[in-house]
Amino acid sequence: MKKLNIGIVGAGRIGKVHAQSIVYHIPEAQVVMVTDVVGAAAQALAEQYGIERWSTDYMDIVNAPDIDAVLVCSPTPTHADISIAAMKAGKHVFCEKPVDLTIEKIKETARVAQETGRKLQIGFNRRFDHNHGRVQQLAANGTLGNVEIVKITSRDPEPPSPEYAASSGGLYIDMMIHDFDMAMFLAGCDVDEVYATGVSIVDPRIGEAGDVDTAIVTLKFANGALGVIDNSRRAAYGYDQRVEVFGSLGMAAGENDGDSTVKVSTAAGVIGDKPQYFFLERYMASFIEEMKQFVAAVNHDTEVPVGIHAGLMSVVLAKAAKKSLDEHRPVKISEIVEG
Amino acid sequence: MKKLNIGIVGAGRIGKVHAQSIVYHIPEAQVVMVTDVVGAAAQALAEQYGIERWSTDYMDIVNAPDIDAVLVCSPTPTHADISIAAMKAGKHVFCEKPVDLTIEKIKETARVAQETGRKLQIGFNRRFDHNHGRVQQLAANGTLGNVEIVKITSRDPEPPSPEYAASSGGLYIDMMIHDFDMAMFLAGCDVDEVYATGVSIVDPRIGEAGDVDTAIVTLKFANGALGVIDNSRRAAYGYDQRVEVFGSLGMAAGENDGDSTVKVSTAAGVIGDKPQYFFLERYMASFIEEMKQFVAAVNHDTEVPVGIHAGLMSVVLAKAAKKSLDEHRPVKISEIVEG
Amino acid sequence: MKKLNIGIVGAGRIGKVHAQSIVYHIPEAQVVMVTDVVGAAAQALAEQYGIERWSTDYMDIVNAPDIDAVLVCSPTPTHADISIAAMKAGKHVFCEKPVDLTIEKIKETARVAQETGRKLQIGFNRRFDHNHGRVQQLAANGTLGNVEIVKITSRDPEPPSPEYAASSGGLYIDMMIHDFDMAMFLAGCDVDEVYATGVSIVDPRIGEAGDVDTAIVTLKFANGALGVIDNSRRAAYGYDQRVEVFGSLGMAAGENDGDSTVKVSTAAGVIGDKPQYFFLERYMASFIEEMKQFVAAVNHDTEVPVGIHAGLMSVVLAKAAKKSLDEHRPVKISEIVEG
Amino acid sequence: MKKLNIGIVGAGRIGKVHAQSIVYHIPEAQVVMVTDVVGAAAQALAEQYGIERWSTDYMDIVNAPDIDAVLVCSPTPTHADISIAAMKAGKHVFCEKPVDLTIEKIKETARVAQETGRKLQIGFNRRFDHNHGRVQQLAANGTLGNVEIVKITSRDPEPPSPEYAASSGGLYIDMMIHDFDMAMFLAGCDVDEVYATGVSIVDPRIGEAGDVDTAIVTLKFANGALGVIDNSRRAAYGYDQRVEVFGSLGMAAGENDGDSTVKVSTAAGVIGDKPQYFFLERYMASFIEEMKQFVAAVNHDTEVPVGIHAGLMSVVLAKAAKKSLDEHRPVKISEIVEG
Repeated sequence: MKKLNIGIVGAGRIGKVHAQSIVYHIPEAQVVMVTDVVGAAAQALAEQYGIERWSTDYMDIVNAPDIDAVLVCSPTPTHADISIAAMKAGKHVFCEKPVDLTIEKIKETARVAQETGRKLQIGFNRRFDHNHGRVQQLAANGTLGNVEIVKITSRDPEPPSPEYAASSGGLYIDMMIHDFDMAMFLAGCDVDEVYATGVSIVDPRIGEAGDVDTAIVTLKFANGALGVIDNSRRAAYGYDQRVEVFGSLGMAAGENDGDSTVKVSTAAGVIGDKPQYFFLERYMASFIEEMKQFVAAVNHDTEVPVGIHAGLMSVVLAKAAKKSLDEHRPVKISEIVEG
Repeated sequence: MKKLNIGIVGAGRIGKVHAQSIVYHIPEAQVVMVTDVVGAAAQALAEQYGIERWSTDYMDIVNAPDIDAVLVCSPTPTHADISIAAMKAGKHVFCEKPVDLTIEKIKETARVAQETGRKLQIGFNRRFDHNHGRVQQLAANGTLGNVEIVKITSRDPEPPSPEYAASSGGLYIDMMIHDFDMAMFLAGCDVDEVYATGVSIVDPRIGEAGDVDTAIVTLKFANGALGVIDNSRRAAYGYDQRVEVFGSLGMAAGENDGDSTVKVSTAAGVIGDKPQYFFLERYMASFIEEMKQFVAAVNHDTEVPVGIHAGLMSVVLAKAAKKSLDEHRPVKISEIVEG
Repeated sequence: MKKLNIGIVGAGRIGKVHAQSIVYHIPEAQVVMVTDVVGAAAQALAEQYGIERWSTDYMDIVNAPDIDAVLVCSPTPTHADISIAAMKAGKHVFCEKPVDLTIEKIKETARVAQETGRKLQIGFNRRFDHNHGRVQQLAANGTLGNVEIVKITSRDPEPPSPEYAASSGGLYIDMMIHDFDMAMFLAGCDVDEVYATGVSIVDPRIGEAGDVDTAIVTLKFANGALGVIDNSRRAAYGYDQRVEVFGSLGMAAGENDGDSTVKVSTAAGVIGDKPQYFFLERYMASFIEEMKQFVAAVNHDTEVPVGIHAGLMSVVLAKAAKKSLDEHRPVKISEIVEG
Repeated sequence: MKKLNIGIVGAGRIGKVHAQSIVYHIPEAQVVMVTDVVGAAAQALAEQYGIERWSTDYMDIVNAPDIDAVLVCSPTPTHADISIAAMKAGKHVFCEKPVDLTIEKIKETARVAQETGRKLQIGFNRRFDHNHGRVQQLAANGTLGNVEIVKITSRDPEPPSPEYAASSGGLYIDMMIHDFDMAMFLAGCDVDEVYATGVSIVDPRIGEAGDVDTAIVTLKFANGALGVIDNSRRAAYGYDQRVEVFGSLGMAAGENDGDSTVKVSTAAGVIGDKPQYFFLERYMASFIEEMKQFVAAVNHDTEVPVGIHAGLMSVVLAKAAKKSLDEHRPVKISEIVEG
């Protein structure tokens, strides 16, 4: 069987994760080139995983005739342009989230995908998590009846630097975007309206930088169900990632993953493991799985599991949440999409 | 030791609960009279628990010189008047929630309590629950650091009749009132602002009667923390009662109580008990404990554990939530209290 | 309805427990006399629970014409004689465990019960525990299929004094007797053979007094199933009481009860409650339930839930275990019963 | 860095597992040859994992000058001879368990390891399990105080064929051998005496073949602690693998691993995942880890984590257990080792 030839744009943390997934877990594909504006990073990644070619110019991947698919793992502002160039060159694309910080650019990317007929998968890896995926499955297969309430708790172990918070677009776009996508994934439909609260009580410098670090957002789904997401930039006990779906026939809820199931009973209490520390520990299996499914979708010409609609709606919700916070009122999704 | 002599107004379900608590669990008190507008109900309760006197007129309790304290367990519209009459007659009062459906009447009741110097305890029994109380203790004693997020899940096993929903004042006042009080209890401070969503998706007749059956309400506390409550009128798996407090040093969260800790592992999965069915099963110990503390507060002339401020603020929040739903915007508490 | 008139012999810890159960929880019965060789103890108990008569001579209960049933809560060596005297005087008997330390005396007690036709219930309260009872129910109703393995963990929070260990008859009779009864209750049949290990590693003085403080005993049941019990005199985390039944269709296993279901997540881990401290906390509900069922068996002339066969076999197993330890070999039950 | 060159003898299930571990997870090593008496099996494995050479004669590996280490994954009766030949040829050896069914052959293998100075690691993979390893760590680092009781539950999801049971040497050697090793690993010392029970109640044909399918074995450790292992050939709910260590300061206990942490609450109860199905699912990470540590021990010339003493003692305990069952008495380990 011919292996799918993949090029990776961006040799940072997430580029490495995908390279590792392909080399160690996906015999149906191989990474043949990696690029990064920092040449040393590209070279290091290439050497670590035995990738033959590296360069500092992503157009080397776009123009390579032997490359079938491109993983866009570069900084956010470049996602759309690289994805578009790659699709126009006939390549299938896996693009990290968010696709872009503007609705226009995401729509343009969507248009190119449609015109070129190329696969375009967005990197919402959490959909492939064993816990969240199981909850979604139970919601989708009818075990829970009609979905009525979706609840997501998502808290990071430690806050980013205030500088990051100032430049990232803020909590709703850099952190809650995963949860917006998860909410729609679990509910099985889009959101109609958003109401956002948010405060800066973890680190005052985050507030001074214009961002919030603690937030609760309420959702109304198109099918009449309700949802709520709570985020914190700092959970003292680690990375808290739990989802719950409540329906007319029951509830499915996942607990955090620890490193073991062991409980220690002493005079101090019955003590279990903390949640696994952060996303590289917690979600590694989901990164592998999303890449497997991308490779399979290309190889078998089937639909990608996470398409551009998810890429668009997650950013729309983040923008609606920010607008809701700024204007202190519930915001309709239609205000953003059509705005 | 002289026993505290107690009169109970109202021989319905909750009157019986309190009678039973006193007879079986509180040797420092005794029930000496019970009244109910339905004489047969008063008589039956008196016979069941060996109470010497019964009548159809609560004024018989108010005027009885040997009665020290009155439990007001009659229908909501009579709570305030009976409490006021009893306090003016020199009796201490335990009043079921809500004190009244109007802010004015609650404030008047508060004034009488202050003027007469009588004890006035409000029946928020869930504060005395072993799980919720433990979470509050951990929040109050600093184990969790600064409180940042309060989450309450509260779902009934089955919906009331549409007629009840139409006459009760609605979900926010007849059901979520407990959760509003719990939220302030856990956060250790009052609420500043409320945003309410609510839909009727469990039973359309509830919607036709003008009420909601599924609701999520977001809270901003005076100390800057955020809160969220979700309610459903119908959980297929029973009475779902969970609270969680997240703070700068950690999180405390309670699970539901089942009838046993037994897990059955078969080819079908690992199956544990459902939550205990409804409030009489789940909260019986808390009813006993609130009554013990009321009797102790009277006997030792100490402060009651749940005062009229809690009675007032819980109704204020319910009204704010209803206004928020009706006007589709966040509502400040000050709009209600001062309105 | 006429109340069952009960006399309690022995005003110690367990006598008080039963008095409290009857006074507070069993309206169908009343305690009318209590005796104790220590008069002050009898008097104190009588006053605490409003019992009209007390004395230092248990024959005052045996001879009282208005007394229907006797609770034998005196020291072990007196159990059989008092039970026999009471039954011969026409009274029903609830006798604490062990019935006696000799097989002969237990058999004699059984004979008298049969001859007089009086009810004779033995105080194996753990059968009425919500967790253990639930496991037994699942075994008995076929959910687990054929019972194949029974496992019991039973550990006390702290060791008794070495003096107690020296005089009690030792761990197998004073502590594991409960577990022997539980094993037969769960398996639904008697035991054929016992193999006992036991060491003194908790407190060397217990070993010097001739007893063990840590023990594992293997059982072969008459139906071919296997069982194992482990005991320790000291569990640093409290009273560890867990049972497990494994059968051809699955397994049922109970966890310990804590004071709450709350888990605290901090940088130190996810911490839950320790098991409730000791038997008065852990098993109080079971003490009430066994007494309710004794009263019901007498009042409705139905079979008692725990008869003298259980009283006999538990002591037989304890003796077999001691013999196994002493002779360092498996011991058949028939060696003891017929010996 | 030069990679460690590995040859694998035996292309069956466990040979494949180790090949996969090395290819996907251990960049410091590579498989350069595989042999199997069934040539097609060797060839298939070679092709699947890109191994350059294959053959039907393990001596091709023994004699290959470029091979540094040999994984002995052939049938049990050949383990010792192949290991000895490989060590004599200067190769390091990883040998699957049991090393041999005779004490003499294991001792001979140990002698050759000592004389040649080659590394010899035995395949007790469960020591590297995240749950069991965590319990051992807590026992070894003093958190639990002095170890007093070790409990191991180990049940397979379905029984082997009666033919297998007849030829494997029986449950104690083919199944409980893992648990014997685990017991000594957890206790941190050897066993002095064994008492075994065993019955055939799962499948009568297993009994007719001379084996048992349900067994409980009690252990006395050299340090005075007690232990117990229960085994069943068939657990209706899957592969049940739990260990517990109880010590003077507390207890550590692991629960089974499921595929997710999700619990589904419906009218039927609160349902969680069954244990992962069998050892390939449950212990895959431990297979990878044992191989990583073997490669590291060779590469850095450090001690292997599981030496020949463990290989010897596990078989000794299995033989002692069989003798105990046959002779219906406790058996000293010294009877076997010196026998």
